[in-house]
Amino acid sequence: MEEHAKPLGLPANQTEIADDGTVGRYTVPVLHDSSTGKAISDSTRIIEYLHEAYPDTPRIIHPETKTLAVAYEHTVLKNVVLHIYATITPRVGSFMSPEDEIKYREMVNKNAGVDHTELVANKEVVEGMWKKAEEGLTLLDGYFRMAKLKFGPESEGVKGGFLEGSKPALADFSLGGFLIWMKHGLGETDEQWKRIESWNDGRWAKYLDAMKPYSEIHE
Amino acid sequence: MEEHAKPLGLPANQTEIADDGTVGRYTVPVLHDSSTGKAISDSTRIIEYLHEAYPDTPRIIHPETKTLAVAYEHTVLKNVVLHIYATITPRVGSFMSPEDEIKYREMVNKNAGVDHTELVANKEVVEGMWKKAEEGLTLLDGYFRMAKLKFGPESEGVKGGFLEGSKPALADFSLGGFLIWMKHGLGETDEQWKRIESWNDGRWAKYLDAMKPYSEIHE
Repeated sequence: MEEHAKPLGLPANQTEIADDGTVGRYTVPVLHDSSTGKAISDSTRIIEYLHEAYPDTPRIIHPETKTLAVAYEHTVLKNVVLHIYATITPRVGSFMSPEDEIKYREMVNKNAGVDHTELVANKEVVEGMWKKAEEGLTLLDGYFRMAKLKFGPESEGVKGGFLEGSKPALADFSLGGFLIWMKHGLGETDEQWKRIESWNDGRWAKYLDAMKPYSEIHE
Repeated sequence: MEEHAKPLGLPANQTEIADDGTVGRYTVPVLHDSSTGKAISDSTRIIEYLHEAYPDTPRIIHPETKTLAVAYEHTVLKNVVLHIYATITPRVGSFMSPEDEIKYREMVNKNAGVDHTELVANKEVVEGMWKKAEEGLTLLDGYFRMAKLKFGPESEGVKGGFLEGSKPALADFSLGGFLIWMKHGLGETDEQWKRIESWNDGRWAKYLDAMKPYSEIHE
């Protein structure tokens, strides 16, 4: 990232730590707003910038949820994403050129501490990973169900099925982003993805369906 | 609880499961509003009721935070409270009559699966419990710090040091409630409590100080 971003004058992400321990790592997404000349790194900071620069557009950050959304994202990471990181992430390489895929897989295998080809061959270990991810998703499902029980299914902020109400907001884009990463990593027709769609009374399939209008790319 | 609540016509808490597995358990707090004749159980439902019945009073439930606050409370429970449940809870008995304390300690020892007197004698085990609770509090401190880093220390919802902004709201009363439970369980002058007050740059001492105006009992 650094060799591409630096010549373009794009900044490092100051909320991440570089490999050498210094603050600031070059990451995507990074925004260059040609109307104002500003360049911003880190997805949350980009959203905050857009809210400030274009106040008449829909807001997805509610001030009251800032710390809670940080906590929620970490809960999803710890209870779901980390368990299956080693089995999903290398698959993302299939969207790259063959040369890039080789480099990418080497990097991911190093991060995950396990060779992906060997891992996939060990069905029992992969099953165990998915078992833990299922427990994690069931925990998240429980939060939705408990809020429904405590506040009522038709109460403001609960009805609509998103985390923050009837429209997706910051924490929803964390959860939705991880689900989309799982779906595209596995592939829509993959057996494991079909299983996930059936978990928790189909909550995750319905959630992504509701997220669709907000996750399309307009060119 | 049941023998006291039932004759008064107070309802069971429908968000909890009774010992026999049926939905509804008699818990405190329970509210009887003599102005309207309504009786409500479960602290969250009581707040929701008060918001609806008295709309001109300050609100502590923001709709966007309902599911996130449920998730956050569970994060505090799992990462902090559960680790030290067995060492704090029996101490609460010291606020009761000697006869009640005996009964109470028996119940808590059964729930915790360990005898409190034996536990306290085993300093190493208790140290280990507090080590885990400290890790949990450091995780929660990290959420505050990450929000400050991502959104800026002066941004709305971050400044003020509460979870939901410059005034405490639902998730703050969860976190604050657990901290108060720890403080009063241990006692203000307890060595362990003094240690907690020094953790994470004094965040928890400052947090409870800021919470003070909102946690006083007006008779």
